[in-house]
Amino acid sequence: MVIDTQAAGRLLMGPGPSNAYPESLAAAGRPLIGHLDPVFLAILDDTSAGLRAVMGTDNELTFPISGTGSAGMEAAFVNWVAPGDVVVIGVNGVFGQRMCDVADRLGAEVVKVEHEWGEALSVERMLSAHPAPAIIAAVHAETSTGVLSDVASIGANKGDALFLVDCVTSVGGVPVELDAWGVDIAYSGTQKCLGVAPGLAPFTANERARERMLDRPVSWYLDLNMIEKYVTGEGARAYHHTAPINAIRGLHAGLATILAEGLDAVFERHRSCGGALFDGLMSLGFEPFAQEGNRIPHLTTAYLPEGVDDAKARRTLLEDFGIEVGGGLGPVAGKIWRVSAMGETARAAHVNTGLAAITAVVS
Amino acid sequence: MVIDTQAAGRLLMGPGPSNAYPESLAAAGRPLIGHLDPVFLAILDDTSAGLRAVMGTDNELTFPISGTGSAGMEAAFVNWVAPGDVVVIGVNGVFGQRMCDVADRLGAEVVKVEHEWGEALSVERMLSAHPAPAIIAAVHAETSTGVLSDVASIGANKGDALFLVDCVTSVGGVPVELDAWGVDIAYSGTQKCLGVAPGLAPFTANERARERMLDRPVSWYLDLNMIEKYVTGEGARAYHHTAPINAIRGLHAGLATILAEGLDAVFERHRSCGGALFDGLMSLGFEPFAQEGNRIPHLTTAYLPEGVDDAKARRTLLEDFGIEVGGGLGPVAGKIWRVSAMGETARAAHVNTGLAAITAVVS
Repeated sequence: MVIDTQAAGRLLMGPGPSNAYPESLAAAGRPLIGHLDPVFLAILDDTSAGLRAVMGTDNELTFPISGTGSAGMEAAFVNWVAPGDVVVIGVNGVFGQRMCDVADRLGAEVVKVEHEWGEALSVERMLSAHPAPAIIAAVHAETSTGVLSDVASIGANKGDALFLVDCVTSVGGVPVELDAWGVDIAYSGTQKCLGVAPGLAPFTANERARERMLDRPVSWYLDLNMIEKYVTGEGARAYHHTAPINAIRGLHAGLATILAEGLDAVFERHRSCGGALFDGLMSLGFEPFAQEGNRIPHLTTAYLPEGVDDAKARRTLLEDFGIEVGGGLGPVAGKIWRVSAMGETARAAHVNTGLAAITAVVS
Repeated sequence: MVIDTQAAGRLLMGPGPSNAYPESLAAAGRPLIGHLDPVFLAILDDTSAGLRAVMGTDNELTFPISGTGSAGMEAAFVNWVAPGDVVVIGVNGVFGQRMCDVADRLGAEVVKVEHEWGEALSVERMLSAHPAPAIIAAVHAETSTGVLSDVASIGANKGDALFLVDCVTSVGGVPVELDAWGVDIAYSGTQKCLGVAPGLAPFTANERARERMLDRPVSWYLDLNMIEKYVTGEGARAYHHTAPINAIRGLHAGLATILAEGLDAVFERHRSCGGALFDGLMSLGFEPFAQEGNRIPHLTTAYLPEGVDDAKARRTLLEDFGIEVGGGLGPVAGKIWRVSAMGETARAAHVNTGLAAITAVVS
């Protein structure tokens, strides 16, 4: 078997994963306990409480789905979309496109609201796309383009529709207030601003959404009717599948780290580190890709300075400096970089180190 | 936030999770690397190679699904079952039942071959249940009943059907020879005999199965057409979803530990520890539940001695001794215990310790 030559890790400044908090890694490596152990169930409940805090919700059904962020996306659609349901989806990058693919497979009548990559979602276009959609779906922070959209204004005017939001790259980095914004269903990922290894999808749905859940979705693994009997409530928990125990302990420890620091301080750390990264890249001749006024503070997307070879520069950064940054996807592959300061990476020393290495490589 | 009062773990002797190998836990707690990092891709490829060894297959498409064992089950059906397809399923416990639920949701015409709980699958009944099924599905080691079935004899006579096997509780504990047995699609779990934390589903499909894969299954997350572009082949890997990096490093380290010890030695350790556990329980007045001749060597299912209160005894074992054993599910809830020696738990000292505690509690 091969040796893990990077057992000491990398400095992760791409679009995710970010570096994980040491407290989270330590918890994920602890000797196991059982998935029905009262000690584990207390940790699971506490994880749900922590997720409510970072997601800005009081929803009872708040817990980590046993899969990555994309499993969260699939759970958000598969439990609500019946064949023929009209689903309005804002598309301004890869993850909006992915939503269309997920919903289409379930037989939804997908109404795509297409935007230029790099633009924020148009609230007006999202709301006027269809007179009576069953679901309106939006990506809060588009990881592929670095754009943050105004989901609150969509939620405030959603009418009878359920409002479904992808918060993968926003939760833990910027204030997310799902209840105040009128969001009915949302999911996130652990490997971005939460500073936890990938593998779980924080998930939440309010009572309005739960009333409209399908009785028997096509997916057994993601069927919330069954999962909620394990993750919510007091007393006996019904076994559905074996929870990813240590991944959840890792998320629990990551949330504890964030809440001990204080959410405002964590957001400020993401904002200031992300700002320093943006400024540093611009001073090196990068040009912003995401629309001004709608940029994710902790994730800069920028055109490479002229003459820099994307693949070669990223390879040099990784091999010679142990630093990972992200390239572009789809139409901007080879043209932009995605560089972030999220989770444990969002510390001044990491940002300064990363910028110094980038300077050495692109200058 | 609550404190993890069992940070030192438990002695896990239930039906899963078992104790994880320390090498696996250490790897799962390492500082992160990226999911497209060449170092990680080498580990992923090596993990697939290790899985081929423990699953007895040369299948190219062999990798860990990003979800628990049940996600493996769902992937095994959702990529092959089209509405109306005839699927013969052997049911002799919870996991055969679960297969029926999964397949039924996908619109399969499910032909259930029901058995008494505690009995092995009847090869004859499985093969004569339908003249031309698209899929024949069986559980190799039924975790709910402790029964090991003869899947090789089904595979040898499967005809044109695809043969799909659940190996969750057998892989790593007893010899599994998927290619020799004519198995086309199989999945396992990490938290049983592989001695790795729960969260991944080792998965494999041969070329015969890959030729019949649906072009566009209803699940995006588990769509093998897309996932295979990331997990197989040389060179550029197409991003599908962010792999659960550290969970895979944990599986990699667990497999390395097993292969360094040698598969035969690992099987012998499971057999001898499981045998000692069986003998010890019988000497305490337990009575075997699973049919003689078809018992999983490392997982004993047994009726409680008269007068022992199931819930109370298990609570005492957990709270006073830090030892977890499993109760019965479904029709045998409250009547049987499921006690195992799997993974790191399959060591003589653990079995002796566990039996001493059980003796103290049930005598």
